[in-house]
Amino acid sequence: MNPPLTRSQLAQLDHDDPLAPCRERFLLPEGVIYLDGNSLGALVKTVPARVQQAVVQEWGQGLIRSWNDAGWYPAPQRIGAAIAALIGAQAHEVVACDSTSVNLFKVLIGALQLRPGRRVILGELGNFPTDMYVASGVAELMGAELRCVAPDELEQAIAQAGDALAVVTLTHVNYKTGRLYDMAGITAAAHRVGGLVAWDLAHSAGTLPVQLNACAVDLAVGCGYKYLNGGPGAPAFVYVAEQHLAQVRSPIAGWHGHAQPFAFTQGYEPHPGIDRMLVGTAPQLAMVALEEALSAFQGVEMAQLRRKGMALGDLFIRLVDEQLAGHGFGVASPRDAAQRGSQVALTHEHGYAIMQALIARGVIGDFRAPDILRFGFAGLYVRYVDIWDAVATLKAVMDSAEWRQPAFMARKAVT
Amino acid sequence: MNPPLTRSQLAQLDHDDPLAPCRERFLLPEGVIYLDGNSLGALVKTVPARVQQAVVQEWGQGLIRSWNDAGWYPAPQRIGAAIAALIGAQAHEVVACDSTSVNLFKVLIGALQLRPGRRVILGELGNFPTDMYVASGVAELMGAELRCVAPDELEQAIAQAGDALAVVTLTHVNYKTGRLYDMAGITAAAHRVGGLVAWDLAHSAGTLPVQLNACAVDLAVGCGYKYLNGGPGAPAFVYVAEQHLAQVRSPIAGWHGHAQPFAFTQGYEPHPGIDRMLVGTAPQLAMVALEEALSAFQGVEMAQLRRKGMALGDLFIRLVDEQLAGHGFGVASPRDAAQRGSQVALTHEHGYAIMQALIARGVIGDFRAPDILRFGFAGLYVRYVDIWDAVATLKAVMDSAEWRQPAFMARKAVT
Repeated sequence: MNPPLTRSQLAQLDHDDPLAPCRERFLLPEGVIYLDGNSLGALVKTVPARVQQAVVQEWGQGLIRSWNDAGWYPAPQRIGAAIAALIGAQAHEVVACDSTSVNLFKVLIGALQLRPGRRVILGELGNFPTDMYVASGVAELMGAELRCVAPDELEQAIAQAGDALAVVTLTHVNYKTGRLYDMAGITAAAHRVGGLVAWDLAHSAGTLPVQLNACAVDLAVGCGYKYLNGGPGAPAFVYVAEQHLAQVRSPIAGWHGHAQPFAFTQGYEPHPGIDRMLVGTAPQLAMVALEEALSAFQGVEMAQLRRKGMALGDLFIRLVDEQLAGHGFGVASPRDAAQRGSQVALTHEHGYAIMQALIARGVIGDFRAPDILRFGFAGLYVRYVDIWDAVATLKAVMDSAEWRQPAFMARKAVT
Repeated sequence: MNPPLTRSQLAQLDHDDPLAPCRERFLLPEGVIYLDGNSLGALVKTVPARVQQAVVQEWGQGLIRSWNDAGWYPAPQRIGAAIAALIGAQAHEVVACDSTSVNLFKVLIGALQLRPGRRVILGELGNFPTDMYVASGVAELMGAELRCVAPDELEQAIAQAGDALAVVTLTHVNYKTGRLYDMAGITAAAHRVGGLVAWDLAHSAGTLPVQLNACAVDLAVGCGYKYLNGGPGAPAFVYVAEQHLAQVRSPIAGWHGHAQPFAFTQGYEPHPGIDRMLVGTAPQLAMVALEEALSAFQGVEMAQLRRKGMALGDLFIRLVDEQLAGHGFGVASPRDAAQRGSQVALTHEHGYAIMQALIARGVIGDFRAPDILRFGFAGLYVRYVDIWDAVATLKAVMDSAEWRQPAFMARKAVT
């Protein structure tokens, strides 16, 4: 057992942190410790002016001309290329568009069609519900079979599905537990039986090194508004490995996926490249916010961000162990940082009310039913001292029992 | 033949126009006559401050708390209700979400499932390509048959399809010719053989009275960035008639369509109402722009807007006839205003270059391949004198033959 930590030791870690200057790229509210960047990323300082320019100048003054003059038209590809650099993909394999759910729908149907005759979609029981909802909808629509198993049973289930396996669909980092999958290993296992993989990078893109090409990943989707900081409901993204680009089809054959969207021909001919995954007109105000937000990654090495995310998580667990013993908390995340994304989940019978009380004191995490308190550690703007202060605040909430106030017990629509 | 008009007569019309004050609700660039509101609506004055508030305060300061505190969560329903009031629907029958193309995909598959055993999707040959692309993709995916006929053959094709007809899908106002369909008549014809209708309101919502309920329309989609002025790539909307709400299913079973999105249950249970058409997280920056833009319709009667749109179109055609005879233009739109939406299409062999030259002089319309010059008349901000000045400018472009300059002949990506 190490001797107890002190806050000043953590301040020294912040002082020595090569990523510390990145925090200056964000506008963070006074008096708040924000540990929910895994749900909605913080605001990058240059975004407000960029959005205002898009509204007032590009839209207001340029009007329709801005599709050419302001670079609106190639925004999905340009942003896709920027995201590709963060997830180990080639620039022409990624586009920003639609929502994560819509993109997952596209790639799952695309995968079934790339593997005709195979009808098993394999997923994880504890995956984020929308992934499972979308997959079950796809299975119903396509006459496929959705099999869901526990994480530890995946490799066996892959082997068992064998030549019936069309696609394995998983979230790289579990939204609740933070458990990190072995992307290379599972992808290889799926390939061994001739199946494909479709990874959801919602909780990994922008916070840890993702190596889509190196892992030979076939298909992937991800979220723009978590660690990429693109703003509430920011456009999502979709990745198709180069080798599949000529064959994969999107079920939603919209005009921006056409080989020549502005030729206005009657017949649909998919674009030869990644553009074929596009559907309708890109939401430019949301696109410019996301694109500008990605500037916060300038000069950031993902490996460095990963090391900090692991350290912040380890620190959080250690302080919870040291300071909150006897308060009824459990740790639902892997204690081994190598098996964990940039978040830690605590369990508590009264998790909802405790999280509300904590938020009232300015420490923002979130709650996931039935009993999870979720804390995310976005290394670009979370400091070591923030972890100290967050756990100290949580201790104060528990010691005072203030979470028992009726205002904290009453559920809101979104938590 | 009437005596030639004068500009001062038109200035008097503007003076007497009860909608004239609405123009003050918009920020329009100096020196521009904007006749492309049917492609991208102009900027409503209050939108920049509203978007900035959403970025800086709601996102930057409120962060994740704004899902509850800033009303983000119910934005799709709130905006849907505001749009419903413009299209003759009930508030609970409309939500704002996704793109028009994605929404069309949902309702076409929904329609096929509401009419099991029927496999014909009937459309129009000259409909906007994305509508046809999406419909052909749906037909391919679902083993249905897409039949496309000319507008005048529709009623016959409906009768011919008979009990094989699942759904008729049409755009209420044709994107190119501006031809306006008889919504009540075609809907009734489809219903007579037991089929459904799915109308695309891209070129009618926000510029003329749409009576979805009165016409007994089953399903509809529409665009947020044309006459609704929601900004480039604004969220679209989807309508499902009350009688179908309990049965219709969206093929894209995302979490925001779930009965309890934040219960995080494993099984998908569609929301009992219109929310079931939602998929992923709503793009809030785009949502707030659209919602604020809708304030420009306060106190506006759609019948009045319709009368002005017809009058502007009639005026445009009359001035083209009077002033541009012999320059090779044709009128591709119905000359009878009752059969035309709020736009007029001219044809010209050199339409592309002429439109570029016109835009260079500050009169903005757009070009649609192969030979259409398209002019839209958004009655909230287009004046009668604008029509005079636009035609006079077009005459100057033709008289000077300046459109023959190489800069105007060279095609850009988007036109």
